[in-house]
Amino acid sequence: MDKIIECVPNFSEGRDLENIEKIVDPFRGKDGVKLLDYQRDEDHNRMVVTVVGEPNQLATSMIEAMGVAIELIDMNKHEGQHPRMGAIDVVPFIPIRNVDMSEAINISKEVAQEAANKYELPIFLYEGSATIPERRNLALVRKGQFEGMPEKLKAPEWRPDFGPDTIHPTAGITAVGARMHLIAYNINLSTDNLEIANQIAKNVRHLSGGLRYCKAIGIELKDRSIVQVSMNMTDFTKTALYRVFELIRIEAKRYGVSIVGSEIIGLVPMAAMIDTAVYYLGIEAFSMDQVLESRIME
Amino acid sequence: MDKIIECVPNFSEGRDLENIEKIVDPFRGKDGVKLLDYQRDEDHNRMVVTVVGEPNQLATSMIEAMGVAIELIDMNKHEGQHPRMGAIDVVPFIPIRNVDMSEAINISKEVAQEAANKYELPIFLYEGSATIPERRNLALVRKGQFEGMPEKLKAPEWRPDFGPDTIHPTAGITAVGARMHLIAYNINLSTDNLEIANQIAKNVRHLSGGLRYCKAIGIELKDRSIVQVSMNMTDFTKTALYRVFELIRIEAKRYGVSIVGSEIIGLVPMAAMIDTAVYYLGIEAFSMDQVLESRIME
Repeated sequence: MDKIIECVPNFSEGRDLENIEKIVDPFRGKDGVKLLDYQRDEDHNRMVVTVVGEPNQLATSMIEAMGVAIELIDMNKHEGQHPRMGAIDVVPFIPIRNVDMSEAINISKEVAQEAANKYELPIFLYEGSATIPERRNLALVRKGQFEGMPEKLKAPEWRPDFGPDTIHPTAGITAVGARMHLIAYNINLSTDNLEIANQIAKNVRHLSGGLRYCKAIGIELKDRSIVQVSMNMTDFTKTALYRVFELIRIEAKRYGVSIVGSEIIGLVPMAAMIDTAVYYLGIEAFSMDQVLESRIME
Repeated sequence: MDKIIECVPNFSEGRDLENIEKIVDPFRGKDGVKLLDYQRDEDHNRMVVTVVGEPNQLATSMIEAMGVAIELIDMNKHEGQHPRMGAIDVVPFIPIRNVDMSEAINISKEVAQEAANKYELPIFLYEGSATIPERRNLALVRKGQFEGMPEKLKAPEWRPDFGPDTIHPTAGITAVGARMHLIAYNINLSTDNLEIANQIAKNVRHLSGGLRYCKAIGIELKDRSIVQVSMNMTDFTKTALYRVFELIRIEAKRYGVSIVGSEIIGLVPMAAMIDTAVYYLGIEAFSMDQVLESRIME
């Protein structure tokens, strides 16, 4: 695989194991497509799939999986704790290797258009693919959820980007877009004072004056009697892991606490880690082509 | 490729471009084998090939390339600045992914035995594969070079591990073994005083009391008016890059100088860089399976 895109579709099915297998099946045994993970949540009644592949093959498999989900999921009968608006709730495409954001956006639009035509499914483009600013934010797009969509779609500003301008009777509506890989990165502090974690989170996150691609909240790790700054790094190529780490170290000093460790939850692109190593070792003129595994994947 | 071994054979041909292409040809267009690089040196009259692959396919290609080199290279006519004892001078196998040292040793022995039988080529096992301590060190094994080998082999302690106990009339003798990936890692200092670089090199290298898997010398970078500790890290899994970096930072303080940067020459395994990032960010319980690209290569 020369070009690699990641796709992390969320399907509104987290309970029926047979249907779950049918939905992920189009990602199996295909050249140029690799299913990395799928995790269901019974309470959310939702499944998150992680799949990577060559852009075109990945797009083909994704459209196929959408067809299966539309056949198997009836949103009129769906209940679960997570906000949702469709059988295929959201389909983000993520550039990973030899692909830039504009190419991920193109693929997202191709998939959106083809799926809309093929299944008569209304689709919103969101995040990097959004055609109007209000649709960049998934929470705003999804507001009203499945039950509120028929009413929401009557407003001209919520006319879907592709497909009919009414919801699919059983599959609802879907958001398709492009974004960077999210890194779930948490930093543990040498205190059990949640106020300190909250204060530091406020200092480093974009929303309240911090780093552009960092979302952060303070949480308690009760079993360890410490607190944590829990973060989503939404674009590690622009807001590097080491930068938020060093900034939190500096902020923590103000409270007389220190960093006791950190954790990465789930998958992290190699480049985020290499970038960190290159920074701390002060390596001059390093190229990703020097990484043996990078050459193997060429 | 699930299991990956690297092989870096050195051939005694650095001038005849046609022959060079013929020698590397067995590494091309094979499933499970990927030719990453080949560099020739006219003065050394020598070529270094870097190839990776599944252990068995790599072994098969390597044996084939040895056959080509034996046909094309006549050591009686060979001259070059680099010490050498055979047409295929040395063949190191290096564990990279899902392969440990013992498996690399096994592959090296299989290749040595099969090539010895097929081509009537005497072979010494060296480094990790050496059967006696004196053969761990390639310089000792190669001592006497091609011209001195007929005499050297008369001594019972230099009886080859495989093949005839006399040299091949045109291809000489070959060393085959297993070792870890060498990382060429250099650290630049804020001084032009070579004595300081030499002193620090002495402090950190194994030979004179430093880190077990570190070789180091001081050199001058005249164009930049600074000096450098130039190193070979011979097992990054046991002597980590960050460890030698931090140790040199500490040693440099004694001379009132600091590290101004570092460089990695050539290829570096992903794990060496990830390990560095994990150390500096203090990441708890990190697994290489969390690296997206690592999962793609599975």
